[in-house]
Amino acid sequence: MQTLTVELPDRHYPIHVGPGLLDDASLLTPHFTGRQVMIVTNETVAPLYLERLKTTLADYDVHEVILPDGEATKNLEHVERIWDALLAAGFNRRATLIALGGGVTGDMTGFAAASYQRGIAFIQVPTTLLAQVDSSVGGKTGVNHPRGKNMIGAFHQPRAVIVDTDTLNTLPARELTAGLAEVIKYGLIRDVDFMTWLEDNMAGLRSLEAPLLTEAILKSCAIKAEIVVEDETEQGVRAHLNLGHTFGHAIETAMGYGNWLHGEAVGAGMMMATGLSQRLGWLDEATLERVASLLNAAGLPRHAPTEVSAERFLELMHLDKKVTDARLRLVLLKALGKACITDEVNETTVRELLENWERQ
Amino acid sequence: MQTLTVELPDRHYPIHVGPGLLDDASLLTPHFTGRQVMIVTNETVAPLYLERLKTTLADYDVHEVILPDGEATKNLEHVERIWDALLAAGFNRRATLIALGGGVTGDMTGFAAASYQRGIAFIQVPTTLLAQVDSSVGGKTGVNHPRGKNMIGAFHQPRAVIVDTDTLNTLPARELTAGLAEVIKYGLIRDVDFMTWLEDNMAGLRSLEAPLLTEAILKSCAIKAEIVVEDETEQGVRAHLNLGHTFGHAIETAMGYGNWLHGEAVGAGMMMATGLSQRLGWLDEATLERVASLLNAAGLPRHAPTEVSAERFLELMHLDKKVTDARLRLVLLKALGKACITDEVNETTVRELLENWERQ
Repeated sequence: MQTLTVELPDRHYPIHVGPGLLDDASLLTPHFTGRQVMIVTNETVAPLYLERLKTTLADYDVHEVILPDGEATKNLEHVERIWDALLAAGFNRRATLIALGGGVTGDMTGFAAASYQRGIAFIQVPTTLLAQVDSSVGGKTGVNHPRGKNMIGAFHQPRAVIVDTDTLNTLPARELTAGLAEVIKYGLIRDVDFMTWLEDNMAGLRSLEAPLLTEAILKSCAIKAEIVVEDETEQGVRAHLNLGHTFGHAIETAMGYGNWLHGEAVGAGMMMATGLSQRLGWLDEATLERVASLLNAAGLPRHAPTEVSAERFLELMHLDKKVTDARLRLVLLKALGKACITDEVNETTVRELLENWERQ
Repeated sequence: MQTLTVELPDRHYPIHVGPGLLDDASLLTPHFTGRQVMIVTNETVAPLYLERLKTTLADYDVHEVILPDGEATKNLEHVERIWDALLAAGFNRRATLIALGGGVTGDMTGFAAASYQRGIAFIQVPTTLLAQVDSSVGGKTGVNHPRGKNMIGAFHQPRAVIVDTDTLNTLPARELTAGLAEVIKYGLIRDVDFMTWLEDNMAGLRSLEAPLLTEAILKSCAIKAEIVVEDETEQGVRAHLNLGHTFGHAIETAMGYGNWLHGEAVGAGMMMATGLSQRLGWLDEATLERVASLLNAAGLPRHAPTEVSAERFLELMHLDKKVTDARLRLVLLKALGKACITDEVNETTVRELLENWERQ
């Protein structure tokens, strides 16, 4: 097991990463604020890990909520199910919530904890690679609204994050690959040594070798934590975390959610951002090839879907921007391991890239 | 106009109190975080003050949500109405919410602000005396759940509180009196000089003399702010704010919400707490009379309802406690202006008080 400590302005919390951690009560119980524990999980994860976690916590007053699975369930109705369960159990403000599942479970559980009796403790036990490297750091919690993703929520930090790498043994290969897109992202935007390490170890990661997974997850969390601390107000470097996401969101939206996984769309999007950086003369052809090989080794797509024309891409990319103004604001690469934000790219250059990009 | 500055650990905000403040844009606009403003109000207050506030803010992009009125509307459904309105208006995280109304409006608007896009700015414009002296300080926001009051919510501080004392001109006299119960409470628990001032000025307050209202509201907010700062975690002196509330909640619950106003029940409850303190030998007979006269001058009841027997009182008072244990925990008066918390009162003493208390 390895541990990373995330430093917040007023306190800190550990991210423990390693195999077999679900059986180790001593990682969880010091973070409980009382004897009342509510595990929130979903219909996919419950049959795999719920009983094991309950056995680990046999000495506590443990209840559970099992929600349906999937991004479409990330709404207020299911957060209300968590509140109802807490009240039905008679749990007070010293209760602790545990999120056992992927990013959707973590986001909803975190928001339920933030708003139950004005805030109770929660612990993240993420079981997908994406949740392990992304949503466990940063304190963002919340749900989608019919009019927009993540519109309702709160900042609420977990007391601890417990990443049992063994849970990846039951993750579908396609979701493992999608999670690797975010892992690769951390190397591309910030750490060329980590990118080299990923090139050397991609096969081992895909074979689920625990020491390699532990290393990759911990490094990813460390880079994300560094960025979040540098930019708490989301004005600057935090945007680097969106490398590939503007292209990627266009693909996700055009194809309908669930047809391309988020990580797959981000993988293709990062390739396109890299391609654009090369067209601008910031990267050479060899670097472009290097990124392409790494994404390929991870099993990620580098092409765009046939269904999405250059015109449709541009339309959706303009919609994706949070603030309405005329120019596209993109995260690109000034060099390998060095992201930048720019709104100075000529739209003609973007259009040329999109028109010539491989479709499949 | 007078101003009190509430000091928080990481920032501060003003409470402005005086007549005619609704027309003064300069008190509101420095606290806006952008041009988008959503006024949340209710069906009772909207016809009285909404257009005036909108005229004051004519230079901004002002939208409105008009909710039904009453404690029964303080639920998640109506908070969702606020979120829907924000999204329908296309408002981003630089939008500002304004709560124009009583405590229910303030609590719901505050929670809507706390959870919209993970937290946006809000300003309180309380229009009832109760909201002006109580709910504008402390940062508690939230809604009721069928299983309990204020179960869902967040701590979220306003950017400013604007108390226009003229709004009390349209407040029903019974609600003004109910608000005075909380004003008197601040004197009883903490400030005997303020209590003397209230004795001298009660008639003027009930005649809505603006300088007196300004003084009473500002002093009440100052005492509440002092207590909240001393005890942010609600472990100690903050409980003093519940003087009369254990008896009062029993009356409210027994009679059904709305039959006795909260402030009326608290008035009677404070009289009972004072009576119990006198039975314990902490206050003399003259002090008891003094409290009774002041409550009487405010128009508040001192008797209990005929419908609530001593037995029923005790049953409900045991239910009211947040933490389950055998002994009643009560806020009483060690002296005038000096509250204390005790769980050492013999239940026989309480029962004797309840059996002999005047019913009406």
